[in-house]
Amino acid sequence: MKAVRNRKHWEVLSKVSLLDRRPWLSVYQEAVSLPDGRVVQDYYGIEMPSYTAVFAITDERQIIVLRSYRHALGEVMLNMPGGMVEEGEDPLAAIQRELLEETGYSATEWTSLGNFIGNASRGCGNYYFFFASGASSIQAPDSGDLEELELLLWTPEELVRALDAGEARSLGTVSVFLLGLRCLESIQATPMS
Amino acid sequence: MKAVRNRKHWEVLSKVSLLDRRPWLSVYQEAVSLPDGRVVQDYYGIEMPSYTAVFAITDERQIIVLRSYRHALGEVMLNMPGGMVEEGEDPLAAIQRELLEETGYSATEWTSLGNFIGNASRGCGNYYFFFASGASSIQAPDSGDLEELELLLWTPEELVRALDAGEARSLGTVSVFLLGLRCLESIQATPMS
Repeated sequence: MKAVRNRKHWEVLSKVSLLDRRPWLSVYQEAVSLPDGRVVQDYYGIEMPSYTAVFAITDERQIIVLRSYRHALGEVMLNMPGGMVEEGEDPLAAIQRELLEETGYSATEWTSLGNFIGNASRGCGNYYFFFASGASSIQAPDSGDLEELELLLWTPEELVRALDAGEARSLGTVSVFLLGLRCLESIQATPMS
Repeated sequence: MKAVRNRKHWEVLSKVSLLDRRPWLSVYQEAVSLPDGRVVQDYYGIEMPSYTAVFAITDERQIIVLRSYRHALGEVMLNMPGGMVEEGEDPLAAIQRELLEETGYSATEWTSLGNFIGNASRGCGNYYFFFASGASSIQAPDSGDLEELELLLWTPEELVRALDAGEARSLGTVSVFLLGLRCLESIQATPMS
């Protein structure tokens, strides 16, 4: 049980599983006690796997972007290389594996862009984002994903245009795009070694 | 039924509800036919309400930021004014209502920062983000939320520092922060009327 970090912490009085379809998702219902003494009997949480994604650039500063069908929108849209972190797998190892599987690329320098949660009220999985440079193609892609992936190599300007045109539609993709662009701008402000 | 937009579209063969706790969430299982002929019997989707959030600035270009306990992480973290879009409510009307309820502020100019989805595979709700300027306090806040809200007025530099320190942890908050900062930079590049 997590320690109470401040007086705003909610106390969990009970937790009941409502649906268990792991590894994809599970849903639970909590009874929680709020700091002001109110009790909420039906607070819902959603557990989903951890996800990871990478903003990867080549030595020519081209950005690796994917385009694929995403079923929740019924449309083809942009995304970044990434996927589920497997049971017991380190997020960095997971994203290095996903980059290789989905694109056939490997990268030399890796930096964290931070750890996030899908939904601050319900959960919906943790997200581990990375920035990688020195990416180069070392083998043919073989993703094993349900979706066919189109691999694109874009300049930052092309990526920004696509963002402005609404071609990135999921919160995870938008977050890693914008965090990666900020990181790219900061390294472009200093000369490369 | 949605028209087939391209050959990457998946065909839904059946859809069964697994859990219905609307308006909070519902979970369903689909059998889907992929473009290559494979059939997946257990593809899961999660329906959640539409959410809305705003990057709002005052005439002095201070940004309205909130800090509150978010139960999915068990921690106090940053977020932007926003909340659920109610049944039949227009997203712009919803965010104007939420801004007023949560902060007591009203704003004069509103622009869309785009529409997004929580998770491109599973769904997890639609997100409508806005940029608002000319914000000013017109009444006392009265959010009705379960969480106590702390209202902050920050410069862009303070917001960027908090982002870099990892104080924004949900994908929705990070997205609206970064989209809003880009919008603010673009209007700062042109003189205000």
